[in-house]
Amino acid sequence: MANISKKVSWSGRGDDRGERTPLLNGAEDGKYNRHVLHFVFQSLDYDNSENQLFLEEERRMSHMGFRCLETRRWVICGLIGFLTGLIACLIDIAVEKLAGYKYSAVKQNIEKFTEFGGLSISLILWAVLNSAFVMVGAIAVAFFEPIAAGSGIPQIKCYLNGVKIPRVVRLKTLAIKVFGVICSVAGGLAVGKEGPMIHSGAVVAAGVSQGRSTSLKKDFKIFEYFRRDTEKRDFVSAGAAAGVSAAFGAPVGGVLFSLEEGASFWNQMLTWRIFFASMISTFTLNFFLSIYHGKPGELSSPGLINFGRFDSDVSSYIPFESFIFFSFHFPGGVLGALFNVINYWLTIFRIRYIHRPCLQVMEAMLVAAVTATISFAMIYFSNDCQPLGQDNTEEYSLQLFCADGEYNSMATAFFNTPERSVRSLFHNPPGSYNPLTLGVFTLAYFVLAVWTYGLTVSAGVFIPSLLIGAAWGRLFGILLSTITSSQSVSAIWADPGKYALIGAAAQLGGIVRMTLSLTVILVEATGSVTYGFPIMLVLMTAKIVGDYFIEGLYDVHIKLQSVPFLHWEAPPTSHWLTAREVMSSPVTCFNRVEKVGRIVDVLSNTSTNHNGFPVVAHTTENDEPGKICGLILRSQLIVLLKHKVFVERASSRLSHRKLQLKDFRDAYPRFPPIQSIHVSQDERECMMDLTEFMNPTPYTVPQETSLPRVFKLFRALGLRHLVVVDNENRVVGLVTRKDLARYHLGKDGLEELHLAQT
Amino acid sequence: MANISKKVSWSGRGDDRGERTPLLNGAEDGKYNRHVLHFVFQSLDYDNSENQLFLEEERRMSHMGFRCLETRRWVICGLIGFLTGLIACLIDIAVEKLAGYKYSAVKQNIEKFTEFGGLSISLILWAVLNSAFVMVGAIAVAFFEPIAAGSGIPQIKCYLNGVKIPRVVRLKTLAIKVFGVICSVAGGLAVGKEGPMIHSGAVVAAGVSQGRSTSLKKDFKIFEYFRRDTEKRDFVSAGAAAGVSAAFGAPVGGVLFSLEEGASFWNQMLTWRIFFASMISTFTLNFFLSIYHGKPGELSSPGLINFGRFDSDVSSYIPFESFIFFSFHFPGGVLGALFNVINYWLTIFRIRYIHRPCLQVMEAMLVAAVTATISFAMIYFSNDCQPLGQDNTEEYSLQLFCADGEYNSMATAFFNTPERSVRSLFHNPPGSYNPLTLGVFTLAYFVLAVWTYGLTVSAGVFIPSLLIGAAWGRLFGILLSTITSSQSVSAIWADPGKYALIGAAAQLGGIVRMTLSLTVILVEATGSVTYGFPIMLVLMTAKIVGDYFIEGLYDVHIKLQSVPFLHWEAPPTSHWLTAREVMSSPVTCFNRVEKVGRIVDVLSNTSTNHNGFPVVAHTTENDEPGKICGLILRSQLIVLLKHKVFVERASSRLSHRKLQLKDFRDAYPRFPPIQSIHVSQDERECMMDLTEFMNPTPYTVPQETSLPRVFKLFRALGLRHLVVVDNENRVVGLVTRKDLARYHLGKDGLEELHLAQT
Repeated sequence: MANISKKVSWSGRGDDRGERTPLLNGAEDGKYNRHVLHFVFQSLDYDNSENQLFLEEERRMSHMGFRCLETRRWVICGLIGFLTGLIACLIDIAVEKLAGYKYSAVKQNIEKFTEFGGLSISLILWAVLNSAFVMVGAIAVAFFEPIAAGSGIPQIKCYLNGVKIPRVVRLKTLAIKVFGVICSVAGGLAVGKEGPMIHSGAVVAAGVSQGRSTSLKKDFKIFEYFRRDTEKRDFVSAGAAAGVSAAFGAPVGGVLFSLEEGASFWNQMLTWRIFFASMISTFTLNFFLSIYHGKPGELSSPGLINFGRFDSDVSSYIPFESFIFFSFHFPGGVLGALFNVINYWLTIFRIRYIHRPCLQVMEAMLVAAVTATISFAMIYFSNDCQPLGQDNTEEYSLQLFCADGEYNSMATAFFNTPERSVRSLFHNPPGSYNPLTLGVFTLAYFVLAVWTYGLTVSAGVFIPSLLIGAAWGRLFGILLSTITSSQSVSAIWADPGKYALIGAAAQLGGIVRMTLSLTVILVEATGSVTYGFPIMLVLMTAKIVGDYFIEGLYDVHIKLQSVPFLHWEAPPTSHWLTAREVMSSPVTCFNRVEKVGRIVDVLSNTSTNHNGFPVVAHTTENDEPGKICGLILRSQLIVLLKHKVFVERASSRLSHRKLQLKDFRDAYPRFPPIQSIHVSQDERECMMDLTEFMNPTPYTVPQETSLPRVFKLFRALGLRHLVVVDNENRVVGLVTRKDLARYHLGKDGLEELHLAQT
Repeated sequence: MANISKKVSWSGRGDDRGERTPLLNGAEDGKYNRHVLHFVFQSLDYDNSENQLFLEEERRMSHMGFRCLETRRWVICGLIGFLTGLIACLIDIAVEKLAGYKYSAVKQNIEKFTEFGGLSISLILWAVLNSAFVMVGAIAVAFFEPIAAGSGIPQIKCYLNGVKIPRVVRLKTLAIKVFGVICSVAGGLAVGKEGPMIHSGAVVAAGVSQGRSTSLKKDFKIFEYFRRDTEKRDFVSAGAAAGVSAAFGAPVGGVLFSLEEGASFWNQMLTWRIFFASMISTFTLNFFLSIYHGKPGELSSPGLINFGRFDSDVSSYIPFESFIFFSFHFPGGVLGALFNVINYWLTIFRIRYIHRPCLQVMEAMLVAAVTATISFAMIYFSNDCQPLGQDNTEEYSLQLFCADGEYNSMATAFFNTPERSVRSLFHNPPGSYNPLTLGVFTLAYFVLAVWTYGLTVSAGVFIPSLLIGAAWGRLFGILLSTITSSQSVSAIWADPGKYALIGAAAQLGGIVRMTLSLTVILVEATGSVTYGFPIMLVLMTAKIVGDYFIEGLYDVHIKLQSVPFLHWEAPPTSHWLTAREVMSSPVTCFNRVEKVGRIVDVLSNTSTNHNGFPVVAHTTENDEPGKICGLILRSQLIVLLKHKVFVERASSRLSHRKLQLKDFRDAYPRFPPIQSIHVSQDERECMMDLTEFMNPTPYTVPQETSLPRVFKLFRALGLRHLVVVDNENRVVGLVTRKDLARYHLGKDGLEELHLAQT
């Protein structure tokens, strides 16, 4: 089972040395237990290790040097934005081309067979085309890079939260992700291409900022200064923002997304750089798409999805309508929660039974075929014919059994990329859809979208959510105008498009539960601030309603992967817990000058697998803990062992090159496992002086510190290890991410999660 | 001199007990020295003092209790938004009415005298009317509440940064501010009413959140939980955001403003609440203004200033134009820096020579009269007649010496509130102004605006900056279209309005140097994201150009007041400084159980005036420092002394009521000075047990910690005191705000400011 479940887990594949594969959440004992945290997820070291090497380098650097660094950061952010924009452009064009071929082929086929009968052949053609696209995408994901499945937003959320998710920001992941999303959208699944952009931007950022690719074994020898977690995480924030910006044409929304998900500390310059990357990204996309569309300079596509212009009349909604809009939070929240609950159980089912790559591919193909079939059936049985107006914007309007000069309106909803369908629901003139069509469509699409999210394909959930919400929102608008049609006020209910917009917001809010950033993203995507107030109200209240039942979709998936995710604050009722109860103890400490053998033994001990070790002044023979004088990381020790920086060697061979920060940076981020380092028996007897390499000023807290206080310190500074000391400054414990993440607020007050040791 | 300078200083008026009045920056020695920091400015206690009382209260509270608190926070934010919106509405209507009366009167007068001659009477009428308005406003500010002068943004920046500026968030300040800004705008000064809204919002927030007004001596006995600096500062952020939102119709910009200026730690729920307050604020303003304008429900005025709708054609600018827009950063940055430099010297001049309230009022009246005169002269001598079109939107178009059916275009620029002038420059059709008019106008308005900012009136600098920039931007646009008129591309240069917009952004950016928030504010004020990219580019580069010469206007004024303002990060070249060098030592410590006499003596010592005291385990007779076991604040000690919580009393009179958090909250925020507490000779011999009241887990750092690390901890957690300990956990020093703020990056590397002891 261990071997099986790794394919659906985020924690990487078994063939990676040094990255251990966990079971998924104790799945081995048959009963799935979600109240578990995994040890396997490590934290990022957002806190700089200010050891002597680091301080020396910083002190050597002149004011000019820091300016250069800052300039380089700007250049990198510009590059991140540019490349992210290009990728978005590539995805957009590829999807449009492929979907275009597909729909043209199917449309011709349908038109051919409509008169003569034999439409089942069209159905089969459609289903086969869909499945073929999806199969290719699913194979790439399932066999080559399972981490590229899904939207990638939960993974990026975790990364920005400070959790190291294996393989999440690698070049290969990016390639599979981009390829996969093109296939799954072209394959007609109920998915969007927006979520994956965020992941793509993050990978671009992680790659560009390091100036090298370990996958391609290419080191450009630039940006070496940025090879540490602190800088990388900052750049990844910029990448994620650039991704959002390209996806929705929402540069400010992108910045807010990154901050909401990732920021522990708001830094003005960093925010400004993130904004720069976002702006460049949407501008690049816009510029290249305008060239592609043959109208260079006409910047009309700031994002992959465009909600189109809403009627910008000042009177487009009246305050009274706000209350109606406001009432949308309830269906949004409830349907969103329902979506999440069903998807939660479905995911557990998948974890248990659909774990082999070939099964996963088959499920994806099945969904694709079913999607085609349902779409076809609904188009076939619907007789909702609408006149084909002058201003008809549908690219593939199907006449089917309608009279000449009319088209089938159900087909516009299904026979299109989801982005276009959303836009149709927002903007088509009143009367384009009849209520029954919309009702059936909502139901069918809801089922398809729930089933689709979590498949082993790269795909986002934003667009399906928007589509579901837009459908029922518009339905509601139509019903409202029918009810009030006899009255004089009916004119103001005339446009169901705005109800579609608010419905879409409510539904999306109910599913993903993002707050400020989502409001701004939606406002930017509509291109007008007019609807800002109702959108905010609806998102806020939909979140409240939804939270009553279950968490947001991303949080559900994060929890299913047992990631030790730190929320914004400790649970409010946790003041009675202190560092003493929370910390792990006893702590494995090292002496300032420690025997190599002991270090190797400790590092090799797979049962503990610690990553940070307090360095103490002197371990006494009895069990009394030593006074803290520093903190050293596993990765640092490994580099030291690899370069054999032993005291004896230093004195005997004076020519021995002094270890520099560069050596640590070269090894970053994939430090070799301890098993790969050979230490002879003689060397085991040597001593290693850690003074120069340890962080001499780790943050410490006394044992009586309350959990919220510890939490705040930990979260605000992005720590990985926090040393707990007694009043003599002796090490008594160590607080790490998992110690804090395991307390959460359940229905009955504070609950504690179990820790799963692999 | 000490008595004099207090009128122009922020640090309050001498008649306040317990708030000492500093000299302004060593002004007494004749030479003004700006490299000084003042002791008088205290920090806010953003870090909760988690003493036993606090922990007991938190532990007693149920999950439901925390929910109630959270709900109350939302209610307060809603109230803040609502009241701020109302105030904005009041200001807008009052200004419009008063200015309307004034311009009608003057216009009638001018029209009467144009034919018969004797226009000098009109000039005198205008000047007298202006001066009268300004006089009333200036008297209110100068005599009753000097802190209400200016825009208030520097003060709010400081408050959000964690500096307690005396009297800045009082009800009286709000009243004077609102009254003052109405007078100064109606008085025709080159000022805006937007900046003061931010201050107003902050005061509203501070008032509402405390559930009482100390000025009115009214305690509503609600929201008592929020009576501490942590909560108050959070609410003030919301208030400032609501102010921005009402001023510019920019709710997201408001949130970003608050975060950019105030946030040390990004908290999702807090941000969401701030956004709520912002939204409510702009909605309230919009709603009431729509009623006032007689079109209820037509929500067309989201802010005090509206840039109006820009042509929303997608092709409204082509990428090539971005480069031209981009070039605007240079004049923007240079002119902005020039503005700041002149204003800097002017402010120093004012500090030295114009310190008496009556002089200040006279200066303000002089400026008002001169403004009227210059305006009049320019209208009089200009012969820029423009045809009076159908779509003419000027309310007070002056015919003057123009032919019938024409109006004087210089008059539209001057004979109007600045907000309307800005809008005219953005939107009037090409050819509305001739280049000479604009050139002269730019020059004249620049001089007036520089002179005006810093007067003892409530007034903002946003609108004047925008107006200057819009004028030269439009001028540039006109010249460009003249140059290229012969060529075929001239059509695209046709609209000078967009150049006016970018010019306005560049000029404002060059003066105030805000970054992300300003971009978003301007984008929201234009109501379209089309110009987001060029606006961002221009703001960014104008800031870089401007920073080369001098800081932003607000920072200049903050520095002139010697406020210990903490920037985002420590100077990059400060890694060679450690806590040991930075800290203040020796530290006055108390024992856990301390003699009352000693406490009173220490608190009464005016030469030190410390606010936080480490509590140590036991002071030994020799000079060896004691082990840290807590931290207690002056304010806490004062409450303890007031309630005479002495060990002897506790044991002798068991009925004595136990001190509760409520007692501390009731005294907040104006704790009485130590002089007002009478302690008898007998009582001096008593002992006081601090254990229950001290914060037992203050943050500590070892002596070797580098300055950037100390800085980060301090800034991220909003600390007031940071205890420096040796490796035995003994107190060796204390780091406070002034210790960190005094290091800054000068031209020649790291510079250290002097500390002014009063």
